[in-house]
Amino acid sequence: MKRRYIDMNDIRFLLFEVHGIDKLTEHPRFAHAGGREEIDQLLQSAMDIADREMFPYYKELDSQPVTYRDGGVRSHPQLKRIFSAVAEAGWFAATTDLEDGGIQLPYTVFSTAHMIFEAANNSAQGYLGVSTGAIDLITTFGNDYLKRTFVPPMMEGKWQGTMALTEPQAGSSLSDIRTTAHPAPDGGYHISGQKIFISGGEHEACDNFIHLTLARIEGAPAGTKGISLFLIPKFLPTQDGSLIYNHVECVADFQKMGQRGYATTHLVFGESGPTVGYLVGEPHRGLSCMFQMMNAARIAVGQTAAAIASAAYHYSLNYAMERPQGRQIQEKDPLKPQIPIIRHADVRRMLLAQKCFVEGSCSLVTECLKLVDLEKITDGEAQQRARLLLELLTPIVKTYPSEEGIRSVSQALQIFGGYGYTMDFDVQQYYRDVRIMAIYEGTTGIQSLDLLGRKVGMESGKALSYLAREIQSVMETANGHASLRPHAAALGSAMQVWQSVLSHLQGHAAKGQVERYLADANLFLELSSLVVMGWQWLKMGVVASDAPAIGGIQTSDFYRNKLIALQYYFKYELPRVHSLATTLKDDADLTTFKGSEELFI
Amino acid sequence: MKRRYIDMNDIRFLLFEVHGIDKLTEHPRFAHAGGREEIDQLLQSAMDIADREMFPYYKELDSQPVTYRDGGVRSHPQLKRIFSAVAEAGWFAATTDLEDGGIQLPYTVFSTAHMIFEAANNSAQGYLGVSTGAIDLITTFGNDYLKRTFVPPMMEGKWQGTMALTEPQAGSSLSDIRTTAHPAPDGGYHISGQKIFISGGEHEACDNFIHLTLARIEGAPAGTKGISLFLIPKFLPTQDGSLIYNHVECVADFQKMGQRGYATTHLVFGESGPTVGYLVGEPHRGLSCMFQMMNAARIAVGQTAAAIASAAYHYSLNYAMERPQGRQIQEKDPLKPQIPIIRHADVRRMLLAQKCFVEGSCSLVTECLKLVDLEKITDGEAQQRARLLLELLTPIVKTYPSEEGIRSVSQALQIFGGYGYTMDFDVQQYYRDVRIMAIYEGTTGIQSLDLLGRKVGMESGKALSYLAREIQSVMETANGHASLRPHAAALGSAMQVWQSVLSHLQGHAAKGQVERYLADANLFLELSSLVVMGWQWLKMGVVASDAPAIGGIQTSDFYRNKLIALQYYFKYELPRVHSLATTLKDDADLTTFKGSEELFI
Repeated sequence: MKRRYIDMNDIRFLLFEVHGIDKLTEHPRFAHAGGREEIDQLLQSAMDIADREMFPYYKELDSQPVTYRDGGVRSHPQLKRIFSAVAEAGWFAATTDLEDGGIQLPYTVFSTAHMIFEAANNSAQGYLGVSTGAIDLITTFGNDYLKRTFVPPMMEGKWQGTMALTEPQAGSSLSDIRTTAHPAPDGGYHISGQKIFISGGEHEACDNFIHLTLARIEGAPAGTKGISLFLIPKFLPTQDGSLIYNHVECVADFQKMGQRGYATTHLVFGESGPTVGYLVGEPHRGLSCMFQMMNAARIAVGQTAAAIASAAYHYSLNYAMERPQGRQIQEKDPLKPQIPIIRHADVRRMLLAQKCFVEGSCSLVTECLKLVDLEKITDGEAQQRARLLLELLTPIVKTYPSEEGIRSVSQALQIFGGYGYTMDFDVQQYYRDVRIMAIYEGTTGIQSLDLLGRKVGMESGKALSYLAREIQSVMETANGHASLRPHAAALGSAMQVWQSVLSHLQGHAAKGQVERYLADANLFLELSSLVVMGWQWLKMGVVASDAPAIGGIQTSDFYRNKLIALQYYFKYELPRVHSLATTLKDDADLTTFKGSEELFI
Repeated sequence: MKRRYIDMNDIRFLLFEVHGIDKLTEHPRFAHAGGREEIDQLLQSAMDIADREMFPYYKELDSQPVTYRDGGVRSHPQLKRIFSAVAEAGWFAATTDLEDGGIQLPYTVFSTAHMIFEAANNSAQGYLGVSTGAIDLITTFGNDYLKRTFVPPMMEGKWQGTMALTEPQAGSSLSDIRTTAHPAPDGGYHISGQKIFISGGEHEACDNFIHLTLARIEGAPAGTKGISLFLIPKFLPTQDGSLIYNHVECVADFQKMGQRGYATTHLVFGESGPTVGYLVGEPHRGLSCMFQMMNAARIAVGQTAAAIASAAYHYSLNYAMERPQGRQIQEKDPLKPQIPIIRHADVRRMLLAQKCFVEGSCSLVTECLKLVDLEKITDGEAQQRARLLLELLTPIVKTYPSEEGIRSVSQALQIFGGYGYTMDFDVQQYYRDVRIMAIYEGTTGIQSLDLLGRKVGMESGKALSYLAREIQSVMETANGHASLRPHAAALGSAMQVWQSVLSHLQGHAAKGQVERYLADANLFLELSSLVVMGWQWLKMGVVASDAPAIGGIQTSDFYRNKLIALQYYFKYELPRVHSLATTLKDDADLTTFKGSEELFI
């Protein structure tokens, strides 16, 4: 049986039937992109690249990992072919405006193609994702010189873009960044400092590395209000087309537990000679520029977790259909042949859990991608709605797939039994790869603070009311279907629980106890995610219920199985809301710091 | 700061204050072992070995893993020194009867020493654990020749014992074992067949390998009632002390995601020449003999998971105290120095979660170890009680630490942020190591079927009533402490929920729907575990509440922190009982096999 890693039918269901992405192309910005058929062809071509150039090398990128040798980073030779194929198909230029040399596709279409790449080979896709993020940042905030000089070679897949934020002393705490930009006599800047954990910061598939870097202009205010954004190339292009070394040294590559095909570098600026950096955007406004890239990256991280889990799900499904072991429980005759393990209820439960996680997460990701597009093509109230919903959902779409993805891939591994723990099977690689997603681009702790500390209260809670209205509206539609009514009711009561928990916590904030208000933000994010996923499932459920009668694009089996996954969600996952609420309303304060570390003696 | 991996004070608290292990030595069987002081010294000497010979090599056993090369298994040279040190201290002979050349210590003391080894270096301990299990099996069921010939070199750490059950087509389904014992003309047996996943099956630290192997005597009945136990040495000892090759070939070593220092071999018997096997116990009764070793191994697996989580917990605690990052939430001045991350509530929650998991799991493990001893030294009703409680608790003590241990170590990794994902820090190794525990010695699925399908109903539910009485009695004592009363009440209501879930499920069984009865056995095991852990925490809580007044052996900080961990359990963990119950009482049947695999189209 051919091993799948992602289901094109499911992508079509989400894009066209659930989230109506093809309607985006009715807007002038995207009119040239064609309709459903053209989008489908584009994604099919992405799948062809993934099938041919990426998936067959998934294991090799792990077993022949990126290494630092002889003063440079050695990477797998296939990487260069992947860059070429992806550039040739135009995916580096996909979302850039036509006037900047791009293809100006909906972000949703671009990112769905990337999801296919992520499922096929998440290490390889890392390089592509960070480069396109850098292109976006330059075309949005860079001046003409930067756009003209750096973007075209990146679009051709010859130069690699990166985002360089973290320093040894500044990871979660970005305000502690020390890399410094010294004004140079020519009006430019010379950069000095160190950056660590720079993904794709050096490898053998590209000729130049363009680091979008956070640094502090000498004398800038302390904290986040003194951080600026710089473009720092490893090699400076000259007018005759030659390249001059810009003293960006890659001094190490971190060896990691997973994503071993994806370089994670340590860079030093201005140590062996002057390093020129170009200011991008206004001085001291670097963090808000970077957050454009960061917010997209946060969706991409959640999406990657879902994509890895998708690959692990299909792999374990395949195995479960082929591996004979044991007999039905009531079969006592040991001479009867063994049955494929997919017939055991416990294995079916683990498969259904994965199906439910993967398909639900992909729906939430698609919802968020669509909001990115809507924010761009709408104005007034509609734009505000898109912007606020996206702000609110970003910590959730980043975190829920990353945290639950660990559990999902773990169930895939469990289905393989002892074999799953051996290097002979790739499932252990998915298990190692997915673990980083809860750390990349703001850990779960940071996302939780963002949700409870900023997003739920922003603009007087307006984001939350938009979301509540969305959920309410889907619940009302679902109430029109007898089979969905109990699930709509369950979601309604989960909503109420969610709101009452928030009011309860806000009681602490009202008393000025901010630490206590935020102490269990992590659990609040989990509870919020469960409500949000219930909304997504109900939304899919309405479509799956209606589709067979109105002529959906899938088989009736497809819709039936979608509704079984929905039932799984409401039986096995949503009830966790209630135990989380019990915990969140319990006022025992066990975790805020009270002046001594003796707790752990 | 010196890095700890296990807390001797916590071991003392559990052994002496909570579970009264020193009272075991009042029994004639153990009288020679001395009292509390002697046991403490023994464990301290185990800690010395672990500190000196095992812990410093934890990383190396992973980075220089066991490999199959030049037709043999290459292992780390330190392994030989570990075998010597452990043998010299008598730990291979610890639980064996005096008359068989052993030291006849309580099993609890022996296994607690092994827990120290597991926390220090779980790969290395694997070899020791499986050897002592094999010694137990031979001394219990073997004839004089086998005991005399094979046990002494194993006790001296020169020969390695193993358990050989799994075959390529028979993993969870032991009844499908095909390895065959052919009666030989001399009255013995010649063995032919293959075994995979044989831990410690070959390496460079020992001279001979003694495989306790399940095989089928030619013509034996099909299924589990035709399985016999054989002792199969790699080399046959002769009367003059020389060794003759017995044609036990090691043809491969599985490379694994974790426990990379622990050999996992593929053995072939009788292929290159005749392989002699010695029958152990009665023909066709092999499985019940093997289950003596297997039951002990199941406790050991849970214990190892808890030990790995202990090491990861202490490691992350250390890091959290030393790593500066960020500031208190209400501190807005970016010029103030960063604070150690242990002051952030979210980090404290992740530390407390680990402390609660590790200390709770160790208490349950100790409870079960004590039952092993009690079953041996009691008779009549007391012995029945010990035996049945142990039967009931075995799937729980195997599974809860193994499954929750994944979550616990994952939180340790999260505390390290991006660093935790790099090979520069050992926490990713703990994360890889712990994952196998939910698979070893019967997967979580198998344990769940064992609990719900066999144990809760065995002897008319007698095991369950014993447990209910135990819990009831602790709840009554706890009710005498005002501060514990709400927790006792919470446990009481969890008990009721548990019982009502069981009655509900038994409704399916009563209608003959066995598949449905067992379909969610996995969740039932999780729910049962939460109740059992609540019992352990309340038990520890009573001691920690009483101890300061009656002169406990620990500091008052120790007891206070124990009570905080208890509060954590009742606030954050026990409430999950209620959402699990909601799921288990929901009668939507989504997972039993109904004749087609179309569910996953």
